[in-house]
Amino acid sequence: MKRIKLTVAYDGTDYSGYQIQNNAPTIEGVLKEAILQVTGEDVTLIGGSRTDAGVHARSNIAVFDTGSPIPGEKFYYALNSKLPPEIRVVASSEVEEDFHPRHCASRKTYEYHIDHGPIPDPLYQRYRTHIYWDLDVEGMKKAAEHFIGEHDFASFCSAGGQTETTVRTIYNCEVIEEGRHIIIHVQGNGFLYNMVRIIAGTLLEVGSGRIAPEDIPGIINACDRQAAGPTAPAKGLVLEKYEFL
Amino acid sequence: MKRIKLTVAYDGTDYSGYQIQNNAPTIEGVLKEAILQVTGEDVTLIGGSRTDAGVHARSNIAVFDTGSPIPGEKFYYALNSKLPPEIRVVASSEVEEDFHPRHCASRKTYEYHIDHGPIPDPLYQRYRTHIYWDLDVEGMKKAAEHFIGEHDFASFCSAGGQTETTVRTIYNCEVIEEGRHIIIHVQGNGFLYNMVRIIAGTLLEVGSGRIAPEDIPGIINACDRQAAGPTAPAKGLVLEKYEFL
Repeated sequence: MKRIKLTVAYDGTDYSGYQIQNNAPTIEGVLKEAILQVTGEDVTLIGGSRTDAGVHARSNIAVFDTGSPIPGEKFYYALNSKLPPEIRVVASSEVEEDFHPRHCASRKTYEYHIDHGPIPDPLYQRYRTHIYWDLDVEGMKKAAEHFIGEHDFASFCSAGGQTETTVRTIYNCEVIEEGRHIIIHVQGNGFLYNMVRIIAGTLLEVGSGRIAPEDIPGIINACDRQAAGPTAPAKGLVLEKYEFL
Repeated sequence: MKRIKLTVAYDGTDYSGYQIQNNAPTIEGVLKEAILQVTGEDVTLIGGSRTDAGVHARSNIAVFDTGSPIPGEKFYYALNSKLPPEIRVVASSEVEEDFHPRHCASRKTYEYHIDHGPIPDPLYQRYRTHIYWDLDVEGMKKAAEHFIGEHDFASFCSAGGQTETTVRTIYNCEVIEEGRHIIIHVQGNGFLYNMVRIIAGTLLEVGSGRIAPEDIPGIINACDRQAAGPTAPAKGLVLEKYEFL
């Protein structure tokens, strides 16, 4: 037996999230089926990030054990021939037999994408949240800086997460404006349930003038979900990078 | 009665092209249905560009006559409430009663999008043609310049087009590389059937080393469809701008 690590990219629009469910299409379900077709084995997958319905990834992680003779670095090729075009294995490799993505120190990079214009661009409707009103992007940029550092992010965690501590370290949080495309770039050592979408929803409240940039430290310190802004829609979120340290 | 001009954007992935057909979803069919719901009128639509199945637009034109009291500049708003999210009317206005988009002097801008990397990016699989092999992008840039000017483009026209002359003027043709995203930008006073896709297919032959950049003038002068490269896939093509002069 050997342990294989897959790096997986997907358009999550038509899936009920990463984690397997009965009677609903999931990324994990489709990956397991492809591995079954390639190896004949009904494997257990260890997921890196259990992304929600509609969330996308360029670099999620899935790990499994197999007796297959296919070399680790060739698995991506065999699996892609069995996967639908909206899911691609972009890399594969053999890893240590005790490797577990959620028990390793890692750095994840998320991007939240906003289509900022009077009418939604249909070519981005699957991947960007549309905002038609004026946004104070300079205010959003100032507010974003307050998230950087080690904080208790309990205000930025939806009910339903399973975690021992709500303390996380954010290495970078910035807002980039490229014409009508606004990108919220967040990098950290781990993220609570819905954390990036609540950060995005709170920054959109800043952009809309309902929260001031200098209110962010108080919202963090409140350790109360009610203090932060709403959870921004799933479709704007992309897990861009997942690195092990 | 008054004549209304619509500027229409759409993701063409799930449509059998612009032009109405029985038993297949089309952009024109969905627009006509939305106009019927808003005005109660079964109008005749005059289309600007009859884009093929899978081709996208940020700025196609559709014109119709109506007795509706809705002001021209408000039509986009009424129609968008009846349209699916993959089709948006981005502007509307009242025009002269004899305005006809295909009889007016116009300038159209198309972009052809290529995803150039080892494995297709699933977030672009609807909008970019994937090329995994090496491309000589400098050669493609040199080749593109030869298309600029007034030429007989019979070599770049699929059978089935209806046109009196195959002479067209290309104002600009350039290849832009932004990481793994390669964009072929073409602007002209008119385009023959499949012309941009055949230009893109020919430039990809140059990128792949099968045609030299300096062969392009001879291919144009041949006035023979067999001389040019293949028709590149529909999904990479976007009608970006449609301007009346």
